[in-house]
Amino acid sequence: MSIMGTVRVHMSASLDGFVAGPDVSVEQPMGVGGERLHEWMFAASDATDNETAAEMFSPRTTGAVVMGRRTFDVGEQPWGEDGAFHLPCFVLTNRAAPTLVKGKTSFTFVTEGPDRALALAQAAAGEKAVNVMGADTVQQLLRRGLVDEIQINLVPVLLHAGARLFEHLGPDRIELERTRAILPSSGMTHLTYRVLRRR
Amino acid sequence: MSIMGTVRVHMSASLDGFVAGPDVSVEQPMGVGGERLHEWMFAASDATDNETAAEMFSPRTTGAVVMGRRTFDVGEQPWGEDGAFHLPCFVLTNRAAPTLVKGKTSFTFVTEGPDRALALAQAAAGEKAVNVMGADTVQQLLRRGLVDEIQINLVPVLLHAGARLFEHLGPDRIELERTRAILPSSGMTHLTYRVLRRR
Repeated sequence: MSIMGTVRVHMSASLDGFVAGPDVSVEQPMGVGGERLHEWMFAASDATDNETAAEMFSPRTTGAVVMGRRTFDVGEQPWGEDGAFHLPCFVLTNRAAPTLVKGKTSFTFVTEGPDRALALAQAAAGEKAVNVMGADTVQQLLRRGLVDEIQINLVPVLLHAGARLFEHLGPDRIELERTRAILPSSGMTHLTYRVLRRR
Repeated sequence: MSIMGTVRVHMSASLDGFVAGPDVSVEQPMGVGGERLHEWMFAASDATDNETAAEMFSPRTTGAVVMGRRTFDVGEQPWGEDGAFHLPCFVLTNRAAPTLVKGKTSFTFVTEGPDRALALAQAAAGEKAVNVMGADTVQQLLRRGLVDEIQINLVPVLLHAGARLFEHLGPDRIELERTRAILPSSGMTHLTYRVLRRR
């Protein structure tokens, strides 16, 4: 058996659990008011926040990305000409399409479901981690017990509306172990959990 | 103007934001599976957790409690003969009833709405804090801008179902400032936020 890298979820969320504002669209990829959740990555005011942001998709530790079609659709434009990730990305979709290459980033469209998308991503990542993006895709993989690590960049705000990360997770609770906590002076709280097991 | 104590919310929540399991009842006051959220208070395995739990309703800092009728109905029995709090408690309800005294704890039933319940509690508390209990009551006071401090005892679990603390909060986001973070070895994360303002 080959060594497989960690499958991890790494998202910014408000204290009330939203990872985007309402009405996500191409014009507003983070939803209405949702850009508040990513301010910490661009504020450039806190070295610890900057390190945490830089580490999220660092090619040193991350080998591939799995995302939902919606995340791709609203992200494609803001990610720019080189696709931003500089990694192989696997997009869960119902519509087959040829692989799209943008500089060092490639987007492969997978119509055979989340297990297949994850298998392709893990094969591409080797021993490095696979990052999962998009609330719906995260939920599908969590329900299947396929997520190893969850990092929440907890933003000090109550957003009140939008898309929640943790919903539709099925009947059984999932136990976690906090493996890291970073408390920058910005008021952000970066919490990393290992997924232990279902009960 | 008299000095008024802090209005604070102090609740245990799962990483997915639930403060009780589903189907809260007199038989299961924390809902189905919800007792998981309070395990940290009774585990007696971590001194930091124990201190945090003891401080929640310490008469040294807390002067009164505001709670919803439902919280009272399901809590009355488990709280025992002395009412557990040893504080004046004000219960938001539609049904008038005479004040119930249990040892050092009193339960005054307030039918004139949350503003009146809070005013009575603040008058009773003097310079000490008023603790607000029950998701629905917390939401009513947050919507009115009447909460000063939120402490979340973040339990390392995804509960998947139950009652959320932060819902129905209206259209405007609320900015917070993290004022304290305690990271016991148990894996709990105790986060305290000051409520800054609506935007």
